[in-house]
Amino acid sequence: MHAITIPEPGGPEALVWAEVPDPVPGDGEVLVDVVSSAVNRADVLQRQGFYNPPPGASPYPGLECAGRVSALGPGVTGWAVGDEVCALLAGGGYAEKVAVPAGQLLPVPEGLDLASAAALPEVTATVWSNVFMVAHLRPAETLLVHGGSSGIGTMAIQLAKAVGARVAVTAGGPEKLARCAELGADILIDYREQDFVEEIRKATDGAGADVILDIIGAKYLDRNVQALAVNGRLAIIGLQGGAKGELNLGALLTKRAAVTATSLRGRPLAEKAAIVAAVREHVWPLIAEGVVKPVIDRTVPMRDAAEGHRVMESSAHIGKVLLKPPTAA
Amino acid sequence: MHAITIPEPGGPEALVWAEVPDPVPGDGEVLVDVVSSAVNRADVLQRQGFYNPPPGASPYPGLECAGRVSALGPGVTGWAVGDEVCALLAGGGYAEKVAVPAGQLLPVPEGLDLASAAALPEVTATVWSNVFMVAHLRPAETLLVHGGSSGIGTMAIQLAKAVGARVAVTAGGPEKLARCAELGADILIDYREQDFVEEIRKATDGAGADVILDIIGAKYLDRNVQALAVNGRLAIIGLQGGAKGELNLGALLTKRAAVTATSLRGRPLAEKAAIVAAVREHVWPLIAEGVVKPVIDRTVPMRDAAEGHRVMESSAHIGKVLLKPPTAA
Repeated sequence: MHAITIPEPGGPEALVWAEVPDPVPGDGEVLVDVVSSAVNRADVLQRQGFYNPPPGASPYPGLECAGRVSALGPGVTGWAVGDEVCALLAGGGYAEKVAVPAGQLLPVPEGLDLASAAALPEVTATVWSNVFMVAHLRPAETLLVHGGSSGIGTMAIQLAKAVGARVAVTAGGPEKLARCAELGADILIDYREQDFVEEIRKATDGAGADVILDIIGAKYLDRNVQALAVNGRLAIIGLQGGAKGELNLGALLTKRAAVTATSLRGRPLAEKAAIVAAVREHVWPLIAEGVVKPVIDRTVPMRDAAEGHRVMESSAHIGKVLLKPPTAA
Repeated sequence: MHAITIPEPGGPEALVWAEVPDPVPGDGEVLVDVVSSAVNRADVLQRQGFYNPPPGASPYPGLECAGRVSALGPGVTGWAVGDEVCALLAGGGYAEKVAVPAGQLLPVPEGLDLASAAALPEVTATVWSNVFMVAHLRPAETLLVHGGSSGIGTMAIQLAKAVGARVAVTAGGPEKLARCAELGADILIDYREQDFVEEIRKATDGAGADVILDIIGAKYLDRNVQALAVNGRLAIIGLQGGAKGELNLGALLTKRAAVTATSLRGRPLAEKAAIVAAVREHVWPLIAEGVVKPVIDRTVPMRDAAEGHRVMESSAHIGKVLLKPPTAA
C-alpha cells in the first residue's frame, strides 16, 4: 500500500507519499481500507518531530479515518468484512490501509456519507471525554471554547448546545465568528480585538465560564483562571501557546476550581474503548437526528497531505480538513 | 458572653478575650453553648489580617466547635435544646456561644466525649470533600499527604487507610513520622532529609501518587506534578508555600492529571450542608466503630488562645489543638 511517511521531520514538504508494507491486524484488531482521513494539529507536531507515536502505534501520521473493514484479526467479534466504519487511531490514518483495535471502531452514523465520517472520531472523542466525562458540563452552565471555528471548536459548540448549555467562543475575525454563531454559539469573542476575560464576565453578569475548553495552554493559563466561575473547570487539550505558565493558586482556591490536562493518543486501549463507547451512546444519536453535524472545510488528495497541513497551519480553515487516498471509492 | 476578639491584626497577642454581645440564632440557625473549639491555620491568617470572615459570618475566629444546643432559631427541625453536637463554622468558635446553620451540625459520634468532638468537623469535612468527593481516591490507590502529623494529616491517613488505600506522608522529623506510622501510614518521608518526588517514585515502582493532598501550594506545585501518577489528582487546600507557582502543563497533559484547589469557609450553605451530610454518612460510622479517632495534641484555655496559636505556628504539635472556654462543663 501507500502511506504518508516522514523520512525527516520538517515543514509540510517533509510529508512523502511512499510505498510501504501493508499493516497486519493483530489480536483484537481490524484492518480498514481507508476512504478518508483528516488532519489534526497533533499531525503537524509529529511532522515537525515534536510528537512521536506511542509505543506500538503506526509510524505514519493520522489519528482518525473512515473506510471499510477488509480483514479481522484474531479474537474480534461484533464487526464483519465490508462494514462501513470510522475509527479513532493512535497513528497511521494517512494511508490506504490501517490496523485498528476493535474498541476504537464506530459505525458510520445513520444519514452520513462514509467519507465525511472521518471528520468525527477525534473531535467527538476529545470533546465528549473532556467537556462531559472530565469537566461534567451541565445544562444551563456556560462553556467557553477557545478556537470555536476549529474542528474541535465546531463540535464542542454543537454538543454543548445539544445538552442545553450556553456557549461562548473565541475566534479570529468576523467570518469565523459568524460560522460559530450559525452552529449555535451565543457569545462571540474576537480574540484579535477583544479581551476574553472581560467579554465573558460581561456576558455572564460577572460570573465567568463554568467550563473552558482550551487549546492554548501556558499563554492563556492566567487569563483562563480569571475567566472561570466559582466551581469552574479548565480543561486543557492543547499547548499551542506553550507548556509552562504561572498558575494563580490563590484565585483557583477562592473559586474552588480545577485545571485538567488530557490527551487521547497515549491512553491505554481500555480507556480509549470506554470513550468511544460513550461517544457512540451519547453523540451518535445526535448525529443521526441531524442535531449535530461534522463541519468540513475541504477535502484534499492524501498524496498532497502537505497542502492539508499548510491550510491547518495558516488557520484559514473552518472545521475539518479531510484527506482522500487515490484508492478511495 | 466572652469571645476572642482581634482589635488589631498581629501576632498571637492580638487575640483578646473580651465581653461581647451574645449571638442570636437567625432563620435555620441553632445557638450552641461551646464546650470546646479548635485552632486551625486559617485562624492564624485571620489573626494576621490576611483572611477576613466571609460576609455574614461571625467576626471572631474559630471554624469548629463542640457543645450543647441552647436555643433554636425559626424553622429548625431535627435538633432539640440540650443536644450534644459538634459543628463546622464560618467563624465564631472562639467564644462561649455561637450561632450555626443547622446543616452544619453533627451529633457527637458514639463513644466519643463531647469536648473531643471539636477536633472533628474541619478535618473530616476537609479530607472527605477533597480526597473523596473531589479527587475520588479509590481502594488500592496511593494517597500522598503533606503534613501527615497535622490535624488534617492525621485524619487523612486514617480515612484513606479505612477505604483500603495506601498512604504516603511527609512530615518533619522521626517523632512525627512515627506517629503517622502508628495511624497507618505506609510510606514515611522526612521532608527535611528526603526528596518526596524521589521517595514516592521509589515506593510505587515509579508510578507516583494517585492523589496528593497538599497544604503548601506554590512552593510544591512543580514537584507535586512530578510526583503524580498517570490520571493523578492534586488537591490543594492550603497555600503555606505561596499562591503563585509555575505549572508544567506538558507534564500534566502527558499524565492526564488534574489540579484542584478548594476551601470550605466561603462555600454556600447548601454545599457545606452536603459535605456535612456526607461526613455523617461515611465518616461518623468509622469513628463510632473506633476505626478512626481524632488525634488531639493538647487542650489550652480559650482565654489563652494566643498559646494555642504559638503551638500551631511552631509546628510542634501532632494533631489538633483544642480551646476550652471557662464556662465549659
